[in-house]
This record gives sequence, structure tokens and C-alpha cells, in this order.
Amino acid sequence: MDETFTTLEFRDEKLYLIDQRALPTEVSYIACATYEDIEFAIRDMIVRGAPAIGATAAYGVYLAAKQCTTETDFRKACQFIALARPTAVNLGWAVNRMVNVYDQNKQLSRTQLLQALLAEAHTIREEDIQTNKKMGEIGTTVIAQNATILTHCNTGALATAGWGTALGVIKTAFYEGKNIFVYADETRPRFQGARLTAWELKQANIPSKLIPDSAAATLIRDGKIDLVILGGDRVAANGDVANKLGTFALSVICKAYGVPFYSAVPISTIDFSIPDGSAIPIEERDASEVTHIQGVQVAPTDMEVFNPAFDVTPHQNITGIITEKGIIYPPFKENIAKLKQ
Amino acid sequence: MDETFTTLEFRDEKLYLIDQRALPTEVSYIACATYEDIEFAIRDMIVRGAPAIGATAAYGVYLAAKQCTTETDFRKACQFIALARPTAVNLGWAVNRMVNVYDQNKQLSRTQLLQALLAEAHTIREEDIQTNKKMGEIGTTVIAQNATILTHCNTGALATAGWGTALGVIKTAFYEGKNIFVYADETRPRFQGARLTAWELKQANIPSKLIPDSAAATLIRDGKIDLVILGGDRVAANGDVANKLGTFALSVICKAYGVPFYSAVPISTIDFSIPDGSAIPIEERDASEVTHIQGVQVAPTDMEVFNPAFDVTPHQNITGIITEKGIIYPPFKENIAKLKQ
Repeated sequence: MDETFTTLEFRDEKLYLIDQRALPTEVSYIACATYEDIEFAIRDMIVRGAPAIGATAAYGVYLAAKQCTTETDFRKACQFIALARPTAVNLGWAVNRMVNVYDQNKQLSRTQLLQALLAEAHTIREEDIQTNKKMGEIGTTVIAQNATILTHCNTGALATAGWGTALGVIKTAFYEGKNIFVYADETRPRFQGARLTAWELKQANIPSKLIPDSAAATLIRDGKIDLVILGGDRVAANGDVANKLGTFALSVICKAYGVPFYSAVPISTIDFSIPDGSAIPIEERDASEVTHIQGVQVAPTDMEVFNPAFDVTPHQNITGIITEKGIIYPPFKENIAKLKQ
Repeated sequence: MDETFTTLEFRDEKLYLIDQRALPTEVSYIACATYEDIEFAIRDMIVRGAPAIGATAAYGVYLAAKQCTTETDFRKACQFIALARPTAVNLGWAVNRMVNVYDQNKQLSRTQLLQALLAEAHTIREEDIQTNKKMGEIGTTVIAQNATILTHCNTGALATAGWGTALGVIKTAFYEGKNIFVYADETRPRFQGARLTAWELKQANIPSKLIPDSAAATLIRDGKIDLVILGGDRVAANGDVANKLGTFALSVICKAYGVPFYSAVPISTIDFSIPDGSAIPIEERDASEVTHIQGVQVAPTDMEVFNPAFDVTPHQNITGIITEKGIIYPPFKENIAKLKQ
């Protein structure tokens, strides 16, 4: 019950990230030696997945503290990292947590301050893995023996510091000995399901099939899916979930056909400051993600494109939100508020 | 108000087909000189779209009659063509219509028989264009001034002998002077929306944007789509519509958010012999359509895939079916039965 690869690891003063753009055909690592490298890695999706972005950003703040000679420059660098992508709340959450450690320790020597920051980044990474394992233990209770599960995007070890959120729950059920079958949505336009989830499922030997996103609806209607489990990039205080484009459509189909629909997220993905999903900023990405696939052109030159990276699923369509502190059920607003206390 | 390209044209004893696999980066034609060429062109999707397949198959039957020295061989060849793809009813419909002409004229000289068959194939092609134009005139009545329309897959000149079904309706509205905007689903896995519809929309200068299939749901929920118009590959006697994968999911979202949902098909796409959608054979295509894009690998080697080419939309989710004889509204079973008479 362990990974056969390391998602992100800090050694020799560099953050080594598995290059998720090159998977599944190539397993390669990229070393980030500066906070600018970190920002690029997040923005260009060398690393993606809300918790993985958080842990990566934490090391970015440590590198920023090392590089910057003034506090003003350091704060600018932190802001730069925090703005690499807008939707996942874990990015800002991790940067803020690191900046708090900076503020608490800035009276110390530079060496001590840097030590404190690096220790905090390590803690964020380690906590994420432990949080995921805990979510797995809690989440597996909703997976019955012989269940067929549909998932979307990638929420595995690659999306986190290790193990995974939704895919972590699925892996926990599998390693416990449950006989399960997984359908993985390919997840256009970036193919995180085809490239990353399918790869992780193969690595773990979990029986599974890859499907075009549009095939999910027929499987759900025909009773071939027992439950959907996917991740989340930002959960609002009322339980609305911003997650990878395609999540919302799945939730409508599941609701129409009575199939349970779970989002698995660490508490750090809940944004208590945002009342509902309408306030979550939705990143629009470049047209080339839709018109080209690894350099292959699939649409006419200059075709205009609408390419939102995420969508918002209303809490009414969600059966439960699996966290490391238990499964949140409706009424979400009340039950999420309790977690804040 | 005319095409800037020819979809399929018979001359010098060959059927010239625009190679839809090469679009939009290359506009090239493939010449089919034998019925085996025709069968391959349909199966490999050099030509696709239910009406285009029908017209192509008609010329295939003519070529079969030319090639075969015995009636038995001819009937075998016709069967071979008819089985090239299972879902679109127009394929069997066109082959049957041609075989009827064969049966009615087989007592004539070989030259006269071949003349009759070629004339019938020309008629099927020409009728299809006229049918599409008529559907355009009828269908444009559901498109209001300033409408934003969502469409799926390709239903334009490329999917027919010319002009188009659903996209023909949209083009009619545009050429009438209506100010419209079109969102085109990219339509995984074969990208007919990205490669073909986007190309036709650009050719016609219709204001439009391409979207990943999963982006449609948010646009529909947010009130940004006034209506959906798409095609159909086989309509059952109760109004259930088999169409390109992704249609069913769209219909559920439209129903949930009260957006009108139209299928535009010629009467030849209605299969009066099939009581409902559950009896429509759904083609499953090769895994490589999902795992590779023009040779680029996007999924792990040997990943298993479920790749149905079509899905079935229940008539309860359909606002109306636009045909060359008028728009069919509920109750569909009764109103479709009237058309048969």
C-alpha cells in the first residue's frame, strides 16, 4: 500500500516535481531552484491538483525567502506565487500559512527563519499525505463491495503531495481488498483522466476503463455506476464545489438518475470566506488547449474558444463531501460552519 | 447562400469524397472507384454523418452492380456496404432503396439497369440537398433574432450531400440575416465539432466559439444558450433519438434548466420499425480513438477503453424534431406515426 513514484520532493535546495505534462508516455522530473520556477510549474501545469499546488507553493515561499533581500521583495514574490492560478484555494492557503510563519519568525536570524520556513513547507507536504490517508479511511466506508465507481480528472498521488483525495479513497478501498471497478473520464481539454488517472490506476493494478467524458451519462443512466467520487478545487461555505470542468454536468446526470455523488477534499480546500459558488473565480485557459493536442491541430486556425478550467457544482447535487474530519452531509452550510470552529 | 466546397460528387465513374479525417488542416478528396472503397470510406469515417453515409452508400450500390457478375455477388456486396456502420439508419435505408431499383429493373439490359441505378443514386443525393434546404426553412422558425445556439458534432454540408441538417437550419437562419451566435461542442473523441463544424462555421463567417464538451453545461445553466439544435443518426418510432455521443448528457442538462432542445433529421432518419431507443444498435469504436489523437498518445499503453460512438436521448428530453415535413412535437409516437402514412 504505497506509491511507486514520488510526486514532489525537496532535496539539495530544489523542489523536484514529476512533470505531469509528459505523462503517461514519459516519467520525468523537473527541478525548481527558484520561486520563479515554482510559479511557472504551477501556471504551466507541470504540477496540478489543488493539494499538490498548495505543497508546491509552500516550497516556493521558502525559496522566495532565500532569494529576496528585502521583506518587500519577499512579499511581492509570495503574491506572484499566489496568483499563478486563481481557482484552487489551496494555493493562497499555503502561501498565507507560510507567510504567517515568516511573520512569526522574522525577528530570528536569517538562517533560523529559513529553517522555520523549510520546516513548515515539509509539514504542509507531510500533513497533506496524512490527511489523504485519513480521507481514504473515512471515504472507503461509502464504497460497497463490488462497487463500480466513476471519477473525473486526476485526484491521485499526482494531484497531492502523495496518495490522493478522491483517488486516494478509491485506492484505499482497493487495497483493503474490495472488489471494485473504476471508470475514469478522460477529462478534456487537458486529459488529466487519460494521462494521469489512467496511469495511476494502471500503476496500482485497479481494474478500470477510460471513457470519453460524454460516455459517463449513458453509464449513469443505465445503472452501471454505483457512485461518483471526485475532488474539489475550492468548496464554498454553503457546500458548492468548484472542480475540474465537467464535474457540474456529471452532478446533474447523477441527480437525475439517483446516483450518489461525492467530492473528496481536505479541509484546506474549504474557503469559509466565500458564501457560495458564484463567488469562486473560474480560470479561463488558453484556446490552444482546445485547438491543439501536443502540437497536433484539431480545430481551424484562429477559431475562437471558450475554455473555462473549472465549473461549479451546486451543493444540492452533492451527496456528501469527504474530508479528513469526516463526511459532511446536508445541510452543508450548517455542517461546514461547525468545522470552522 | 451556397457551399464553397463539394462534400461528395460522382464523376468519371468515381465518387469523390472530401476526406473528413484530414480536415481542418487539409482539404483533400478521395476517389472511390469500387464498392469496397465505398465501404472503407464509411467505416473509416472518410465520410460520416447519417445523410452523407446514405448518399455515399447509394453510389456504392451502383458500383457493386457494375462490378458484380452475378446477382448473388451483387446482393452480398450490398450487404457488405450496409454493415459498414451499425447506428445510422440512412445507410440501410439508402441500400434498400437502391436494391429496390435493382429489383424493378433487373429484367432490362445491363446498361439500362446500371443507368437506372446511377440515376437513383443521383436522385438520393439531390433529394438530400433539397430536403436539407427545406428543413432549414422550417427549422429557422425556432431561431429568434439574436439567439445563441449550441450544437454538437457536425451536421453541416459535410454530414450530408450538401447544406446540412441541424447546421443547415443554423446556416439558413444566418443567411436570412438573423444575428446569431453559435457555440460548437468539440465532440470527443473524433472532434467532429472542432475539426468539421468549426471549419464550416468559419467558412460561412458565422460568429461562433468552440468549447470542450464539458463546458456546455455551465453555459446552459447560466442562461447563455437559447436553444440546442443537433442532428440524429436514427430516430425510433417513439421519438427517442440516437445521435453522437454527448447528445444525451446535453438533453438532461437542457431539461434541468428549461432550455429548448431540437433534433433536425430528414424523414429518412426515422426508423419506423424500431419502437424505442433501446432497440437501436450503438456502435462501439476502437480504443485508439480515445487513447491517441492523430498518432499522439494521451493514455497509458493497453489502457482499456469504453468508446460508444452514439447515445440515445429519450423523447421526454426533446422539445421538437425538425424534418422536411415540419416540426414534430409531442406526443411523438402519435405524430411520428402520422408521417408514415
